[in-house]
Amino acid sequence: MTRIAIDAMGGDHAPHEIVAGAVWGAQEYGVAIELVGKQDRIEQELDKIAQDGIYSDCGTGGKPKRIKIDLNKLDIKITHASEVIEMGEAPGQAIRKKKKSSIVLAVDAVAKGSSDAVVAAGSTGAAMASSLFGLGRLTGIDRPAIAVTLPTMKKPIVLIDGGANSNCTPEMLFQFAVMGVTFSKNVLGIENPRVGVLNIGEEAGKGNELAQATYKLLDEHHEKINFVGNIEGKEIFLSVCDVVVCDGFVGNVALKITEGTSSMLFRMIKSEFKSDLVGKIIGLLAKPFMKRIGKKINYEEFGGALLLGVKGITVISHGRSKAYAIKNAVRVAKEAVETGVNEKISRFNEEQ
Amino acid sequence: MTRIAIDAMGGDHAPHEIVAGAVWGAQEYGVAIELVGKQDRIEQELDKIAQDGIYSDCGTGGKPKRIKIDLNKLDIKITHASEVIEMGEAPGQAIRKKKKSSIVLAVDAVAKGSSDAVVAAGSTGAAMASSLFGLGRLTGIDRPAIAVTLPTMKKPIVLIDGGANSNCTPEMLFQFAVMGVTFSKNVLGIENPRVGVLNIGEEAGKGNELAQATYKLLDEHHEKINFVGNIEGKEIFLSVCDVVVCDGFVGNVALKITEGTSSMLFRMIKSEFKSDLVGKIIGLLAKPFMKRIGKKINYEEFGGALLLGVKGITVISHGRSKAYAIKNAVRVAKEAVETGVNEKISRFNEEQ
Repeated sequence: MTRIAIDAMGGDHAPHEIVAGAVWGAQEYGVAIELVGKQDRIEQELDKIAQDGIYSDCGTGGKPKRIKIDLNKLDIKITHASEVIEMGEAPGQAIRKKKKSSIVLAVDAVAKGSSDAVVAAGSTGAAMASSLFGLGRLTGIDRPAIAVTLPTMKKPIVLIDGGANSNCTPEMLFQFAVMGVTFSKNVLGIENPRVGVLNIGEEAGKGNELAQATYKLLDEHHEKINFVGNIEGKEIFLSVCDVVVCDGFVGNVALKITEGTSSMLFRMIKSEFKSDLVGKIIGLLAKPFMKRIGKKINYEEFGGALLLGVKGITVISHGRSKAYAIKNAVRVAKEAVETGVNEKISRFNEEQ
Repeated sequence: MTRIAIDAMGGDHAPHEIVAGAVWGAQEYGVAIELVGKQDRIEQELDKIAQDGIYSDCGTGGKPKRIKIDLNKLDIKITHASEVIEMGEAPGQAIRKKKKSSIVLAVDAVAKGSSDAVVAAGSTGAAMASSLFGLGRLTGIDRPAIAVTLPTMKKPIVLIDGGANSNCTPEMLFQFAVMGVTFSKNVLGIENPRVGVLNIGEEAGKGNELAQATYKLLDEHHEKINFVGNIEGKEIFLSVCDVVVCDGFVGNVALKITEGTSSMLFRMIKSEFKSDLVGKIIGLLAKPFMKRIGKKINYEEFGGALLLGVKGITVISHGRSKAYAIKNAVRVAKEAVETGVNEKISRFNEEQ
């Protein structure tokens, strides 16, 4: 049985929502879990769940529903971690200093083989640093990168790097393309994924030095990578490619702008409907439709992004994750384990 | 009387929509215009307008309305340009080779003093290159940058650079901050504008080398610039600052992602309402509300972005601009001339 280690202490709503999401994921996806964190806190949470179940809005933002959890049927292991890495701490330093922290021990569980993957909603930097040092890099990969699955009108698209590397070389972006393709093919089931470079124009000579050099490198290796050229930001959601490659700075800005734009639009829509009585009534009628859209683009549905390039599976969840997002992150972790995405990245690189 | 030169041949809908927008702007904002392009084509368009007026959806995407234009009351000058720079041409080469092109002669009109500003909806690169070479740089400015005004829930925010410079130094970003502040204060009327660096986290050490060094530089000069630190993409629309500074690559990606995200959301909303009969009815009722929001975030309302840092006013409009956008671009040009934003940038730099 696949076992997923969860950093029970990471994230804005830890440990309450994290433990709830973990057991919910275990029940829904039939996996074993390893909860890593302060033992007494985790046991308290489990006791509450045993009595009362868990409560979640299921990503709708509406009234929480009660979900019954039968803990006796689940395979739950608790691993005590006496320390917690906080959001503000410098990641490299923190993982060296806090060897007994929940994220370090959760990654360690994968390194030792007691679990198959980690889900982490705490400091992204700490999750990356502990994965890099605890698990090591895959053959042929210089730097791990974050692969984020984005919803579009048609099939989902993978953006890589979503924020692991702020300063990149063309060679790193080429490796991101290889990892993104392997993920898209094996986890999302997309055949011969098309790769685009995130850029500010379509022509080959467009963009900054990095984008130009990456274009050249991918173009030279088009027999290995199904390279379709430059992709502009406005095309990302139009399914013109399946994998978008960029450095982690641009990628992270892009992701957060997407989040900012959609939340501004939803607020504008709400306030527009509130402008008069007719609007209020129509707004009420339109609510279920708007909710369905909100659900489609909600990060909670996607659960988390995969850190690709390390010898193990690390799923990085949003710091604001509640139970529903963590449940979905457990699914992402399970799928990554079962499809063997890491072995396939290594194989791709060995074949070169 | 302020006179605005318009590249009548630039943009996807030139010359028809450009000439229409120019005369509309002249009538609405009481400015004189100088239409630069193929004389016979421009005269044809003016003849049609004299007989039939102009038609515009006024940025709503709905049925076009007829707007009556009294050409006899307007001060219109035509300057013949025998050449046109096409979208695909390399800007630097094109402006050297095509000295009789509409964009080069439109900028020349400002350089010679027959007009006070240029509006250009053709190749952004050609508009920048001809402005840089035709008008020269302001004192203390190494590279001109594009200042884009973005709508938020509260007051508008300025993003600079929106795409003029793909590779930047911290010193360039510092100058962008100076220009953005002068624009925000004098054109948008915002007192003591707050400046933020577009970054992937709030802490000082976050981001790529450029963002880190820019943070340091702005922080050192906080007596001149009201620097509020790093701004994440999701905060751009939350009015936490008034001027967002970034390199032109990141800025252009950010702008196009904003465009892509909103158009995907609007398509999703449309398709969600179409899912059943009740939805169709509610969708119809909700249409006027959605239209009003569409109008609020429509680039056509903003008309165009200012190229700051050159000795003259150049307004860069979207290539897809129709009459309504060009009319608003004329307004932007007029405001920039009247507020003397360039003189104020020069003065800021001379005082240092």
